Amino acid sequence: MDYKAPLSQIMLTLNHAAGMQDGIASGIFSDLDDGLAAAVLDEAAKFGEDVLAPINHSGDRAGASLKDRVVTTAPGWRAAYEQWVAGGWNALTGPASHGGQALPHLLNAACLEIWSAANMAFTLCPVLGMGAVEAVATHGSEALKATYLSKMVSGAWTGTMNLTEPQAGSDLALVRSRAEPQPDGSYKVFGTKIFITYGEHDMAGNIVHLVLARVTGAPEGIKGISLFVVPKFMVNKDGSLGARNDVFCSGLEEKMGIHASPTCTMIFGDKEGAIGWLIGEENRGLNCMFTMMNNARLATALQGVALASIATQKATDFARERRQGRAVGDGALGPVPIIQHPDVRRNLMIMRTLTAAARAICYLTAQALDHAHRAPDASARAEAGGRAALLTPLAKAFSSDIGNEVTSLGVQVHGGMGFIEETGAAQYMRDARIVAIYEGTNGIQAIDLVQRKLGLADGATLAREIADMRATLAALGQRNTPGFGKTHERLSEAVDSFERAANWLHQALATSPALALAGATPFLRVFGLARGGVSLAAMALAATNDGDGAEAVQDARFFAECLATAAPGLALSVMEGGAFALEPAFAGGH
Amino acid sequence: MDYKAPLSQIMLTLNHAAGMQDGIASGIFSDLDDGLAAAVLDEAAKFGEDVLAPINHSGDRAGASLKDRVVTTAPGWRAAYEQWVAGGWNALTGPASHGGQALPHLLNAACLEIWSAANMAFTLCPVLGMGAVEAVATHGSEALKATYLSKMVSGAWTGTMNLTEPQAGSDLALVRSRAEPQPDGSYKVFGTKIFITYGEHDMAGNIVHLVLARVTGAPEGIKGISLFVVPKFMVNKDGSLGARNDVFCSGLEEKMGIHASPTCTMIFGDKEGAIGWLIGEENRGLNCMFTMMNNARLATALQGVALASIATQKATDFARERRQGRAVGDGALGPVPIIQHPDVRRNLMIMRTLTAAARAICYLTAQALDHAHRAPDASARAEAGGRAALLTPLAKAFSSDIGNEVTSLGVQVHGGMGFIEETGAAQYMRDARIVAIYEGTNGIQAIDLVQRKLGLADGATLAREIADMRATLAALGQRNTPGFGKTHERLSEAVDSFERAANWLHQALATSPALALAGATPFLRVFGLARGGVSLAAMALAATNDGDGAEAVQDARFFAECLATAAPGLALSVMEGGAFALEPAFAGGH
Repeated sequence: MDYKAPLSQIMLTLNHAAGMQDGIASGIFSDLDDGLAAAVLDEAAKFGEDVLAPINHSGDRAGASLKDRVVTTAPGWRAAYEQWVAGGWNALTGPASHGGQALPHLLNAACLEIWSAANMAFTLCPVLGMGAVEAVATHGSEALKATYLSKMVSGAWTGTMNLTEPQAGSDLALVRSRAEPQPDGSYKVFGTKIFITYGEHDMAGNIVHLVLARVTGAPEGIKGISLFVVPKFMVNKDGSLGARNDVFCSGLEEKMGIHASPTCTMIFGDKEGAIGWLIGEENRGLNCMFTMMNNARLATALQGVALASIATQKATDFARERRQGRAVGDGALGPVPIIQHPDVRRNLMIMRTLTAAARAICYLTAQALDHAHRAPDASARAEAGGRAALLTPLAKAFSSDIGNEVTSLGVQVHGGMGFIEETGAAQYMRDARIVAIYEGTNGIQAIDLVQRKLGLADGATLAREIADMRATLAALGQRNTPGFGKTHERLSEAVDSFERAANWLHQALATSPALALAGATPFLRVFGLARGGVSLAAMALAATNDGDGAEAVQDARFFAECLATAAPGLALSVMEGGAFALEPAFAGGH
Repeated sequence: MDYKAPLSQIMLTLNHAAGMQDGIASGIFSDLDDGLAAAVLDEAAKFGEDVLAPINHSGDRAGASLKDRVVTTAPGWRAAYEQWVAGGWNALTGPASHGGQALPHLLNAACLEIWSAANMAFTLCPVLGMGAVEAVATHGSEALKATYLSKMVSGAWTGTMNLTEPQAGSDLALVRSRAEPQPDGSYKVFGTKIFITYGEHDMAGNIVHLVLARVTGAPEGIKGISLFVVPKFMVNKDGSLGARNDVFCSGLEEKMGIHASPTCTMIFGDKEGAIGWLIGEENRGLNCMFTMMNNARLATALQGVALASIATQKATDFARERRQGRAVGDGALGPVPIIQHPDVRRNLMIMRTLTAAARAICYLTAQALDHAHRAPDASARAEAGGRAALLTPLAKAFSSDIGNEVTSLGVQVHGGMGFIEETGAAQYMRDARIVAIYEGTNGIQAIDLVQRKLGLADGATLAREIADMRATLAALGQRNTPGFGKTHERLSEAVDSFERAANWLHQALATSPALALAGATPFLRVFGLARGGVSLAAMALAATNDGDGAEAVQDARFFAECLATAAPGLALSVMEGGAFALEPAFAGGH
């Protein structure tokens, strides 16, 4: 299926929703000066369009296969991965000390969106690798770094995250895999992990598994979990590959989507034990995981944006070509492209603006992550870190929710053709469905937002976010040209609703936590409508300053008038709809 | 996968949302007296649970296959169909003159829901047959009836509907298949039809195709389309089967869902022409189709209810068994069933109450169809006919929309397991996805509601529906016990929003039809929230009268406080959000 990266929209979002221009001016993004961002994105787009997109649909049809413990990826996958590594794409964000380019998360976010749109099932492999690089770089010993990091940064070796076990999904306290300390400082790891993305494959020389397990005698619960590096092939002192480690893939899941991404059941220590090395301290494995969590959740969020984006593109193209029915009020003329029908156009506008809003939220989150590392003074870094923490669950849940909604609308716009696999619209919907689930279900994101993030810095982080939105609303109120329609009014109501619900939740958390948690999911949606709508307005204001804002204004207006209108009702259901959570029993389904 | 028909909830809905008890008392449903309804439903449930449900998942995995023009259905399909016919299920609604039981649509609606929940891909075959029976019984000549009807009523022969062509989907004016009159009164039919459900299969002795085509020389557009009977095998005078007709299946679609239902490309007249007979008058084929339309759309709507229902059942069962995380405010105790987590319970409540509301709307529609045929005086029949016409697009679009939403939430409740095909939750979501598309896309339903139904009987049909809702609200206002919480307030706001938006649309249709059509889809949703919510309240009032209403009150309250709260915002987007439809051009997707 064709894909064309929406570069002008991406640049508009980077510059005016996520402050890239400001960051270049202030020096935080000095490494993006001289048009580097645009140049990188151009090349990233070419790679996505020319290498990844052409094998996306065929990969879905072929899937990955397992025979005699060997996983064979779909036709074209190996060659694409070779090009990926040769092009240096894997090293974009890796540490400079080990061959990486250490470019900002903000630029990487745009690249990840493009590659995920072109081929989510492929891009998952390097995304997992980036997380593994971060864990080893941040918490690994010098010996581990020396052995693994440069190969992982280049992509010569890939990385995996082994967390889930059959009884331990969202609840990692239940992890049972175990690690026995050995005299030489290594550990022997035993256990079964499920849902391991690219746990086994044929694209790279080695696979570096990061595995959560309990050291013998560790305490129960999350405070007894440690993180280990377990390579597929042992690594000799000279860096060459040695014997096969005692870890293998025992099965592939048959999934609803991302068929070309092998989802493996991994057996560690079927015989003598899989040899592994501790990352960080014993029993502090979850802390190592938390280091990566914001980045990993943002990468996941971008998959939602990506699939929404390509679904929108594909549906729009179809609606321009498909002719059915007469135009409104023009009974005489023959069938028109369905994009002329108001109801079809509504669907396309919903798709386009939800995508744009989620993209803005994700890029803003990436910018906050960059500021948390790059800002010149500690208080600015701390503030930015708080903002990243506040926005991350929003980015993850809102983007993956709209990924589901937009890809489903994409099927709808195609009519009967959308239900036929050949068309490709169905694949985006099937692929998107996992994003709201993995890397912390969206319900867990909403709980995280309510329980841990609203109160950050005694509420100052939240207050700053509201003030930031109100500043844009003030600018919008001054500009208020007719083209904006009721944008200012509706977005103000959305921000008011958000603040009202946040204040209510603050009280409820203290007095009736079950009531607060019952409203977490609709509250997160209100946040998304407010933050996303205001960001679109900011983009529209900037674009009209640049003299070319008609489309941006149309987007902001539609989002405000047709989608942000949901915010007051959602806030009401947060504040006055939680009685069900206090019922002692729950009746059956019916 | 197991399925247990929710008979008590179905009976509550039949009796108190769809007036079955009133109808029995008044004599309109005198044929349901003496517990017949309950007895039929018990047996229908057994058939669904014991025969259809056990082959649903295996059928999805195996699918139907085509070889040498022969379609082989999934293992177990033929045997189940034999039991279906032997049990007399196919004849439930057929005309008594040809061996049918002519039972009310209301009872059939409940049966169709049960069978579709147990196995939608199977049930599609008899559903199509029921439509074909209706067309032949209503419009066919005596000769056609004598030849085909009793076999079709019993299910010995199945029926199909051949409407769609590659260039003619929603827009039947573009149909190109043609029919050449023959001296003996028959026609030779030529053309290619796509998306033909059970167009070819191995379950019955003959297949009776109903085909839209243009008689040679017919006018262009919809006024030149005729309807034909084209049998797979010619029928001899003695009723035995003769030669194979010139019609065959040239391909099966690979679809996102309903894999076990063969979706056929049918070639008519590849050689000498497929022999067919006119149903009704030449060029009046669409009128024959319209006869069936309300029933067919209701049957489709029930598929949405059905998949929502079984998805809710399955997710609830899973949430009772799966243990992850601690209970709110109880950090010390070990992992609890996830149904105890407020956010999971919210998802289950959304699933349960959306399902219950859609069921109520569908059964109410079926009751209106029955009254339109059975009411003693002509004005009551006309009123009921208007009500059925008003409610049908609502039933079809709202139920299939919530079918998508609820089955997707079902996947979500399962977490990572939901994305794995083995679990079964994903199948419901994939199967459900077609329902919002076929039998008139939901956008077309919304346009039908706004353009054709609001003004029925000069608005009197709509006014009666609003008055009916307000009568229930008045009763609720009198009862208003604490358990109802804000039910009365929220539902009143929903009905007010509906009326406000309907009045606005009435004006807009006259002055700016594009603006009116731009709001059709959210308007239909407001109708669903109002009508569905009020019906749940009516059920809760009746159930508490019977002394056993705690669950019904909980459902009505949740729906009102957490879902109907969307109505005012949606109405606002209808009335003040249509500017996008007046923009001359539409930008690209991004």
